[in-house]
Amino acid sequence: MSLREMSGIGAAVVAGVLVGFSLIVDGLNLWPMPASVSYGSRTLYFSKDLQLRTEESNYSDVSGILKDGFSRMIDVIQTTHVVDGNVPSSGALHGLHVRIFSLDDELNFGTDETYKLFIPESGDDTYAYIEAQTVYGALHAFETFSQLCIFNFDTRIYEIHSAPWKIVDGPRFPYRGLLIDTSRHFLPLPIIKKVIDSMSFTKLNVLHWHIVDRESFPIQTPSYPNLWKGAYSYSERYTVDDAQEIVQYAKIRGINVLAEIDVPGHAHSWGFGYPSLWPAVDCPEPLDVSKEFAFQVLDGILSDFKKIFKFKFVHLGGDEVNTTCWTTTPHISKWLKEHHMNASDAYTYFVLRAQKIALSHDYEVINWEETFNNFGEKLSRKTVIHNWLGRGVAEKVVASGLRCIVSNQDKWYLDHLDATWEGFYMNEPLENITKPEQQKLVLGGEVCMWGETVDASDIEQTIWPRAAAAAERLWSPIGKLATNPNQVATRLAHFRCLLNQRGVAAAPLFGLGRAIPPHQDSCMRQ
Amino acid sequence: MSLREMSGIGAAVVAGVLVGFSLIVDGLNLWPMPASVSYGSRTLYFSKDLQLRTEESNYSDVSGILKDGFSRMIDVIQTTHVVDGNVPSSGALHGLHVRIFSLDDELNFGTDETYKLFIPESGDDTYAYIEAQTVYGALHAFETFSQLCIFNFDTRIYEIHSAPWKIVDGPRFPYRGLLIDTSRHFLPLPIIKKVIDSMSFTKLNVLHWHIVDRESFPIQTPSYPNLWKGAYSYSERYTVDDAQEIVQYAKIRGINVLAEIDVPGHAHSWGFGYPSLWPAVDCPEPLDVSKEFAFQVLDGILSDFKKIFKFKFVHLGGDEVNTTCWTTTPHISKWLKEHHMNASDAYTYFVLRAQKIALSHDYEVINWEETFNNFGEKLSRKTVIHNWLGRGVAEKVVASGLRCIVSNQDKWYLDHLDATWEGFYMNEPLENITKPEQQKLVLGGEVCMWGETVDASDIEQTIWPRAAAAAERLWSPIGKLATNPNQVATRLAHFRCLLNQRGVAAAPLFGLGRAIPPHQDSCMRQ
Repeated sequence: MSLREMSGIGAAVVAGVLVGFSLIVDGLNLWPMPASVSYGSRTLYFSKDLQLRTEESNYSDVSGILKDGFSRMIDVIQTTHVVDGNVPSSGALHGLHVRIFSLDDELNFGTDETYKLFIPESGDDTYAYIEAQTVYGALHAFETFSQLCIFNFDTRIYEIHSAPWKIVDGPRFPYRGLLIDTSRHFLPLPIIKKVIDSMSFTKLNVLHWHIVDRESFPIQTPSYPNLWKGAYSYSERYTVDDAQEIVQYAKIRGINVLAEIDVPGHAHSWGFGYPSLWPAVDCPEPLDVSKEFAFQVLDGILSDFKKIFKFKFVHLGGDEVNTTCWTTTPHISKWLKEHHMNASDAYTYFVLRAQKIALSHDYEVINWEETFNNFGEKLSRKTVIHNWLGRGVAEKVVASGLRCIVSNQDKWYLDHLDATWEGFYMNEPLENITKPEQQKLVLGGEVCMWGETVDASDIEQTIWPRAAAAAERLWSPIGKLATNPNQVATRLAHFRCLLNQRGVAAAPLFGLGRAIPPHQDSCMRQ
Repeated sequence: MSLREMSGIGAAVVAGVLVGFSLIVDGLNLWPMPASVSYGSRTLYFSKDLQLRTEESNYSDVSGILKDGFSRMIDVIQTTHVVDGNVPSSGALHGLHVRIFSLDDELNFGTDETYKLFIPESGDDTYAYIEAQTVYGALHAFETFSQLCIFNFDTRIYEIHSAPWKIVDGPRFPYRGLLIDTSRHFLPLPIIKKVIDSMSFTKLNVLHWHIVDRESFPIQTPSYPNLWKGAYSYSERYTVDDAQEIVQYAKIRGINVLAEIDVPGHAHSWGFGYPSLWPAVDCPEPLDVSKEFAFQVLDGILSDFKKIFKFKFVHLGGDEVNTTCWTTTPHISKWLKEHHMNASDAYTYFVLRAQKIALSHDYEVINWEETFNNFGEKLSRKTVIHNWLGRGVAEKVVASGLRCIVSNQDKWYLDHLDATWEGFYMNEPLENITKPEQQKLVLGGEVCMWGETVDASDIEQTIWPRAAAAAERLWSPIGKLATNPNQVATRLAHFRCLLNQRGVAAAPLFGLGRAIPPHQDSCMRQ
């Protein structure tokens, strides 16, 4: 770009075009920022033929997770432009040599996600080198590598600038989640898969699937096959196979699926299949606490879930329980008296009994914070409390010795359109938690995409780029995080443009959640 | 779904759930509606193993267009659910037998798109039968077939209800377009490809690529290699190879790409590479009419385009030309006087000379309607006038003997968010044109997705489902079109849900353009 040619043009245009041209080429445009990065000043080149080498790796890749991940990386790099130039003989990068130490590719909470990525500056037979404990660390290394690749428009090949690179990386928190809600609006499989793809770009690792709520029951549960009669329509349903497909699709991208079945509130839709679960047809929630059948059905659902969802945790909800229908329905009111319970006792009773059922299926339990706020001392010590109402809960939870996931709605609810990316970025899960043993009890955090106004048409731009801002908070060491979000605005704008280039409908940064581009301009300035 | 089980539940819920369940199974849910359809009452079944047979076909499919189209159809059908059930021995559909008469698979304006699709009710070795003049007709038949396939959630296989089917189909208009604008916002390749995918679902057949405008010049033009210095940024550009990739991607889906280079207005961005094209740096539009260089550059661009864009037409714009910079810039004002022209004459001169250059490259020319409105009698008789300002233009154009494409902005501009799908559906290109020989001069119509507030994050839901409403107007025989849009609302809602199931972010019907779902509910009711 010739400055001289543009002299005399409005300064805004000059600055604008230059900003665009310079940022991509020279910036350290990685998102989320790795724990440790150093780099040099040489350039490497590659075309379409990057090779994968795995000598000295203990991991056999029988299931193809590494090989598929490598192919996907190549596809993602090459999706935006046709790559058909010739690589110069000097400075050619031939491929990636991946060494994985663990034989095991089970994915679960706590799976090692660390990796090292070394890109040499040159050599006769130049390979980048990746070292990871598990294949999932190697997948993160692939993602980081992909973000270093820059298309050269003149030569039509890819380049890696600023070699040699030495990146040593791993997550700050083991739980980095995103909630989707398939009850308020059904989300078709391709949409969920695309959300999972994007999560892998940001190194998020838990898809919290809020499957069922009062509005619809979209999933097949063979133990109680009438439950999905509560689906919105014939076609707005998931078979067991569909759910397994989602779990597998996520797994090979290093993402766990946390299933939620929210009890005893948020369960109106259960009764379309089994009306006796309703206290009364005109008072359908919470689930009828007086019926053994309610617990039998929950047991059946969790038995079905256990065959699909292999994550260590299941989420049992427990939030927003309005017990009015229990006290106003004669047979339940009678049952309460017989059992010397008031409605609040019955709420405790239901949640604790649900926990026991989940524990009997070898799940550890996550519950929304109301359970802790109301009867925290009675909860199973294996409970993880999921904060959502506000700040300050995590410190009480960990002080009590329980574990916690942070999702305070004022900052990390994606359906709050006035929650800005700056707020997502700055929300610190360890706020006011200083003791190392208590800090360890904060498993991480989660951004929540509730579905009341979100369906297949608008979910991507409501999630991204704000969820990416939180993803860096959850991944990068606290010392690497910006103390003022303005410091990362340009890098996040670059990452949102990268998402766009990969076909993800990430919204402009500047505006409220799901903002449209306000006027014509470069992606980088919106 | 048991009605009895739901007795006593609110009527809205009962009606709602039932609407959802019944519509999908029993309706004639094809979009756009074929010219002729008859069907029966038998059911056929198939799983993952549909076969393609091509005996008696003259077409050799050397380029794989048919085979790839068949694979894509299978993928699209199976994208929403895992298909793993067993097909009953009776009623099994084994595949599709396609017979194509033409050897040729060149795609251009006027390529035969008709097809016949017969699905028998049963037989020992049951194949659906497709007959088409060209492979592109066969692709339309695949799309129609895919819309007849219904997933059975109990058996986990696909079914075709209401066999035997006999469908004889072809388009009402040969030109059925959608405009995208990559100047106001850059659209990455994967986004453009997804728009093309969706166009094929609605049988639209022309992607009008408004490549360049005043804001940015994102495409490589080897003849004048500095032009893309007018791009927004380093990465917001298309190489020649990228453009060829788009053309090829569209072609194998039966979609032509119409390239537009809008002159002499809307050309500010040209001057970032060649400032002498500007009348003055502080008065940069229209292109400097006094310079031979302006016409040399246009000639170079069209020479480059001819290698990429094989469509019979090129679009030369010609709209919204404000000639103030010509009269206020001394050297142009002087040139006008020397050539005995006023500014209006110079506008005519520029457009006619641009037309001649395009004709010399064997393109026929499309111009926006201002050229016709101002000096229609002087235009090349090979000109197609592209209406946009309002209604009533087409009848004047065809009365003058020129051809016309209809895009009146009040109804068919997708960036007009208050233009409803009902308006898109009801906009009739032949309004007030009754003579058959004049009707033939209306090549068709086009919906326009101008890019001021549209980028990768919101283009899909701004285009769909409204463009689909216009697509039926342009495809189906007038006698098959609804006289009241309410008659097709349910079918269009079903089609928008189908788009969602295929991963397309089509917005709810009920609301303005790009509306979000206003509250939790079934896709079918939004």
